[in-house]
Amino acid sequence: MSPSKLLFTPGPLNTTNGVKSAMLCDMGSRDAEFLGIVREIRRQLLEIGGADEAFECVLLQGSGTYVLESVISSAIPRDGRLLVLVNGAYGRRIRDIAKVHGIETEALELAENRKFTAEMVRDQLAALPGTTHVAAVHCETTTGILNPIEEIGPIVRNAGAVYFVDAMSSFGAVEIDLKTAPIDFLVSSANKCIQGVPGFGFVLARRERLLECRGRARTLSLDLYAQWAAGEADGEFRFTPPVQVLLAFHQALREFNAEGGVRGRGARYRSNHVALMRGMRELGFETYLAPEDASHIITTFRYPANPQFKYEALYRKLSEWGFIIYPGKLSDEPTFRIGTIGALYPRNIEALVEKIGLVLEEMGVDVPIMRR
Amino acid sequence: MSPSKLLFTPGPLNTTNGVKSAMLCDMGSRDAEFLGIVREIRRQLLEIGGADEAFECVLLQGSGTYVLESVISSAIPRDGRLLVLVNGAYGRRIRDIAKVHGIETEALELAENRKFTAEMVRDQLAALPGTTHVAAVHCETTTGILNPIEEIGPIVRNAGAVYFVDAMSSFGAVEIDLKTAPIDFLVSSANKCIQGVPGFGFVLARRERLLECRGRARTLSLDLYAQWAAGEADGEFRFTPPVQVLLAFHQALREFNAEGGVRGRGARYRSNHVALMRGMRELGFETYLAPEDASHIITTFRYPANPQFKYEALYRKLSEWGFIIYPGKLSDEPTFRIGTIGALYPRNIEALVEKIGLVLEEMGVDVPIMRR
Repeated sequence: MSPSKLLFTPGPLNTTNGVKSAMLCDMGSRDAEFLGIVREIRRQLLEIGGADEAFECVLLQGSGTYVLESVISSAIPRDGRLLVLVNGAYGRRIRDIAKVHGIETEALELAENRKFTAEMVRDQLAALPGTTHVAAVHCETTTGILNPIEEIGPIVRNAGAVYFVDAMSSFGAVEIDLKTAPIDFLVSSANKCIQGVPGFGFVLARRERLLECRGRARTLSLDLYAQWAAGEADGEFRFTPPVQVLLAFHQALREFNAEGGVRGRGARYRSNHVALMRGMRELGFETYLAPEDASHIITTFRYPANPQFKYEALYRKLSEWGFIIYPGKLSDEPTFRIGTIGALYPRNIEALVEKIGLVLEEMGVDVPIMRR
Repeated sequence: MSPSKLLFTPGPLNTTNGVKSAMLCDMGSRDAEFLGIVREIRRQLLEIGGADEAFECVLLQGSGTYVLESVISSAIPRDGRLLVLVNGAYGRRIRDIAKVHGIETEALELAENRKFTAEMVRDQLAALPGTTHVAAVHCETTTGILNPIEEIGPIVRNAGAVYFVDAMSSFGAVEIDLKTAPIDFLVSSANKCIQGVPGFGFVLARRERLLECRGRARTLSLDLYAQWAAGEADGEFRFTPPVQVLLAFHQALREFNAEGGVRGRGARYRSNHVALMRGMRELGFETYLAPEDASHIITTFRYPANPQFKYEALYRKLSEWGFIIYPGKLSDEPTFRIGTIGALYPRNIEALVEKIGLVLEEMGVDVPIMRR
C-alpha cells in the first residue's frame, strides 16, 4: 500500500488517521452498538444544520448523486413542477435527474461565473406560477461559486414552493441554518467537509415535507420516505449499510466537534484558501471567478497563456510528488481546480504552490506566468 | 472501539485484518493508481464467474439491492415482461422492484422450503409466452436454499428470454459458470463471499445484452449501461466511488485467490456448515429445510418447542459474549438463522454452539431440546 497522497480535490478528501482507523472493526448491521452509532450520527447532523424538532435526518447508501436523486424522485409528485437554478455542472445534474423521471422541469441558467440573486428567482417564479419545487446548489464545485441560498429561501417560501438545497461540498464548512434559510430538503455527503470516507450521503428534511413523500417514490432503493420510516421503526437501514464507512463518519464527527464545528473547520479552510490565493497569485495565476466570488471550498484557475503549459504534465508531476489536483469542468475555457477542504493545512497548500512553481520552471514557463 | 464480534449472519460479515487494514489510505478517485485497482477488480470478478470475452463487469455504489434495481430498471424495456421465481424474501424483492418501475411482472411462487426445478420453469414459460426476462435467486438467504440456476438457464435461453441471477450470497462460495449456465446478468455484492466490506455491488453481464440497455434506464444513478460506458471511457466511476471499500475488496480478492478461489473458500464454508449441523443436532435443533436442501451459506433453525426458549434472550446473551446470530425471516413459522460465511472457521462454529448450549441451560431448556 502506497502512502496517502494529498488530495486537493472536491472529494473524496484526505481524512485523518483517526477516521480511517475507526474502520478497523467488523460490526453487525443490526447490532445494538451499531444502531446506537447511526442514531448518534443522525442527531449530530441535525445539530450541525441548526435544525429544530421540525426536522429529520435520513442517511442513504451510495454517492451524493444517489441522495439527490432520492430527494428529487421521492418528493416531487407526478403533477409537480420543478425549477432548477443552474450555474454549473451540479445544477445541470439535478435537471438531468428530474428529466429521467419525467418531471416537468424548468432551468434558470446563468453563466458559470455568476451568482443567483433573490431578485432573479423572484422574477422567474413570477413568470412560472405553477412551480411547486425549487432546487439550488449551494457551493457549485464546477467553479467554487457560493450561491446565496439564505436569500433565495424566503422567495421560494413566499411562492409556496418546496425548497431543495444541494449543500454537498459546503455543509460543515459554511454556516447554514435550516430554520431561517428556510430549507425543506438539504443534501450532503459523508466524504466532504465532515471529512468521512465516501459511501453514503444524508438528507436533512422538514418532517412535514418528508411525510408528504410517502408513496411518491419512483424507485425502491432511493425511496426517501421508506428509508426514513425504516430507520424510525427499528433504527435499521432497509438494505445493508456501509458499516465501516459509518464508523469512520462517527469518528469524523467527533473530530469535527473538537475542531470547533462549522466555525472552526470553516476557519481552517479559509486559511487554506488565503494561502492558496496568495501563492497562486505570486506565481501569476488568475482565478476564473472574481476573487470576491471564490469560496474557500475549491478554486478554479485559468491556464496560463504560455503554450508551454501542459495541464496533464503538471498533474502527473505533482501526482508523482504526492499532490493530487483536479481538472476543470467548464465548457467554454480551459481551467483546473484546487480544493482546500479535507485534512489539509496551510503548510500543505504552501508546499503544493511551491511544487507548482517548480513544474512551471521545468516546463519552461516563466514565473510569474503571463496571464491569458 | 470495541473488538469485533463474530458475525454469523448473511452479511456484512467478518473480514480479515488484512482486508480492513487496506482501508488505511486516502486515494483520489481519478488517480491512476486507483483506476488500476478498479480495473483489476473488474477483471478478477469476471474470472471468478468463469466469464469469457463475451462478458463485462460493472461495479455500482450502494448495497446489493441497488445493483438488483439497476439491472431490472436498466435491462427491461417498456414493453418487456418479467417472470420472477419466488421462494423467499429476495425473490419477492425483485418482484417489488419491477412493480415500482411499472414493469409487467409475473411471479412463480413456491413454498419457502421448496426448490425450483427446470420443469416448473419450462411449464410456466409455456403458459406465459410473451415473457422476455426471467429472474432467479441462487441462494435464497431467507432460508439458505440453493435454487438450481444452471438447470433453469437453458430453459430460459430456449424460450428466448434474458436470464438474471441474484447470486448475492453464493458468488465466490458456490461454483458458477456464466457461459454454461447460461446467464445474461449475474449480481452480487462486496460484503458477501469475497469477504470485502459493504459499499458496492457488481454485475457480470453478457456484453450483447448490456449494450441493449442503452437508453432504457429509468433512473440516473442506477443506469447500468451508463455506469459501464463511463468505466470503459476513462476507467472512472460516474459518481464518487467508496474508495476505501474498493481498496478493501482488492485485498479481499488477493486473499480469496490465496485460499484457492471458489473451491478453497467453498470447502471452508462447507466445513463450517458441517460443524454447525453436527453441533446443533446434538443440542436437539431441527432445521427448517430438509438437511439435503440446506446450503453452506446460511442455515435456518426452528425454535425449540419448550416455551422457556426466548430468541431475544439468546441473541442478547450471545451478543454479550461476542457472537451475533440472525433472526428468521419466514412469515409462517418462528425461526432463527446462523450464517457460516465470512472470516469464520470451524473452531468459531464450535464455540458458538457451545455458547448456545450454555444459554439454553440457563433458560431452563433441557438439552437436547424437544423438537417442535
